Amino acid sequence: MIAERAAFSAEDAHLRTFSQSVDHIQNLGANDIYNWFLASTSNPPVNSDGATVVQPPDLKLNLIYPCTAQHIAKYSAQGVRIVTETPTIYRDHIRPFMQEKRDAGRLNWVFNIIEGRTEQEDVIFREHSSKSSDNEDEGFLLLPDLNWDRKTIASLHLLGLVERRDIWSVRDLSKTHVPWLKTMRAKMLESTTKLFPQVEADQLKLYVHYQPTYYHFHVHVVHVMLEAGATQATGKALGLDNIIGQLEAMDREDASMQDVSLSYTVGEASELWQKIYEPLKNGTLNVSAAS
Amino acid sequence: MIAERAAFSAEDAHLRTFSQSVDHIQNLGANDIYNWFLASTSNPPVNSDGATVVQPPDLKLNLIYPCTAQHIAKYSAQGVRIVTETPTIYRDHIRPFMQEKRDAGRLNWVFNIIEGRTEQEDVIFREHSSKSSDNEDEGFLLLPDLNWDRKTIASLHLLGLVERRDIWSVRDLSKTHVPWLKTMRAKMLESTTKLFPQVEADQLKLYVHYQPTYYHFHVHVVHVMLEAGATQATGKALGLDNIIGQLEAMDREDASMQDVSLSYTVGEASELWQKIYEPLKNGTLNVSAAS
Repeated sequence: MIAERAAFSAEDAHLRTFSQSVDHIQNLGANDIYNWFLASTSNPPVNSDGATVVQPPDLKLNLIYPCTAQHIAKYSAQGVRIVTETPTIYRDHIRPFMQEKRDAGRLNWVFNIIEGRTEQEDVIFREHSSKSSDNEDEGFLLLPDLNWDRKTIASLHLLGLVERRDIWSVRDLSKTHVPWLKTMRAKMLESTTKLFPQVEADQLKLYVHYQPTYYHFHVHVVHVMLEAGATQATGKALGLDNIIGQLEAMDREDASMQDVSLSYTVGEASELWQKIYEPLKNGTLNVSAAS
Repeated sequence: MIAERAAFSAEDAHLRTFSQSVDHIQNLGANDIYNWFLASTSNPPVNSDGATVVQPPDLKLNLIYPCTAQHIAKYSAQGVRIVTETPTIYRDHIRPFMQEKRDAGRLNWVFNIIEGRTEQEDVIFREHSSKSSDNEDEGFLLLPDLNWDRKTIASLHLLGLVERRDIWSVRDLSKTHVPWLKTMRAKMLESTTKLFPQVEADQLKLYVHYQPTYYHFHVHVVHVMLEAGATQATGKALGLDNIIGQLEAMDREDASMQDVSLSYTVGEASELWQKIYEPLKNGTLNVSAAS
């Protein structure tokens, strides 16, 4: 017998009484406006002897209070579209969009971590670049991903942030970066397996997002047993090994990921859809002739 | 507040009493040894007025009875490894493995469908190749994937099987196939949106598996809202658009996917791991020097 959690009911009658049905609430932690709880929706059953059968909590609750309109938009169901970013669309529309986001200070939190000003207690590994040696560009640091509980090894999820600032996304990787990528990949695997000796290197999956949430190159390092959801899906995630393989197989020395078309999913509520891809689809924004 | 189902407890005490805690069992259907149910683990809570709050079922149960050792192996947790298939490993070990599987008659069910002998009631679209015209290689057919309920549009999942038999997997795609791939992609999108007019072409995600379950080229066509699980994960799924983009960006006219390294996940119980990758890791099987 295979037992799975059934889907939530989205019927009005259920949603109206949902808050009354939550009981046995346990606080797991809190950070600013974010709070986490375990809870049960119902009373424990009694067995044939009339004794109560203790049940583990069947609900995880995330409370954001007070929340903003952005929080509501982020968690609301939204339509999703597949778009194809050609080299020309990248050059004309996406690169300027990335520039705008970087200029708006969206990366300050990343630079704060890299420069040691904030969140240093979260940095579980750091290899500093050294301007004077031959590893000038090889600095990176590892942090636990926000979605990891920081203890379950089978759902290990780390973020590798590179120290260099010239690589905004996978688009900036070129064939000349292959040795750098291979070194960084090897060091990320080595440091993760040293920190978590229960894990072998071939149990770690490395991938990047395109589009990423922020335009500073970072690598997701996850345990292969981590349940694969939207974060690992084709249309969002690109395997780091396959990117290296793709760059290696390109013939021209100046070949780069800026030369390829990349397809990915965007939410209809996202700026990328509303400012770029929907106008391109409607013909109210144009793609210049490929040069 | 965001409410999610909490993880099941795998503690012995809970598992021992699990069968006693299942109640309000509803049969959803049955087919041979396979049976599906909804059920509740516990009693409905009472609200502040002492009234019972009706709860939807919180469990989905799949019962296979009687089951075989294969069923148990399939649903048992197995370790997973990441492997990197270089062009040399492909040529020396994987291609012969594929040949062996094809020779063993593993594709008879595919050829039966293509040749119209079985499962014709499942074929929802077919474009025949015609040897006499210019679309000799363009035949394909669309079937619902076994995991689709055949009605929920947001979880639409079709399989596109090509009629030509010379492409065993993504490894056989070369730069010269780009026009063929683009035509097939367009026809799959067009026929799917005609069959399901609620869906637009940019709401469909096309991907292939590597490694696939069987060595006859087939494309997964899914709705972008389908929950992304292991079938769409990096390390298993490759976006068809990105493969086309990768081939287009290769310079040599004879470039192909046989020239690149591909990394993917394999189960430790799989033949690929046991016969090829584990021996390669242990040094009991060798990789020849790249020629």
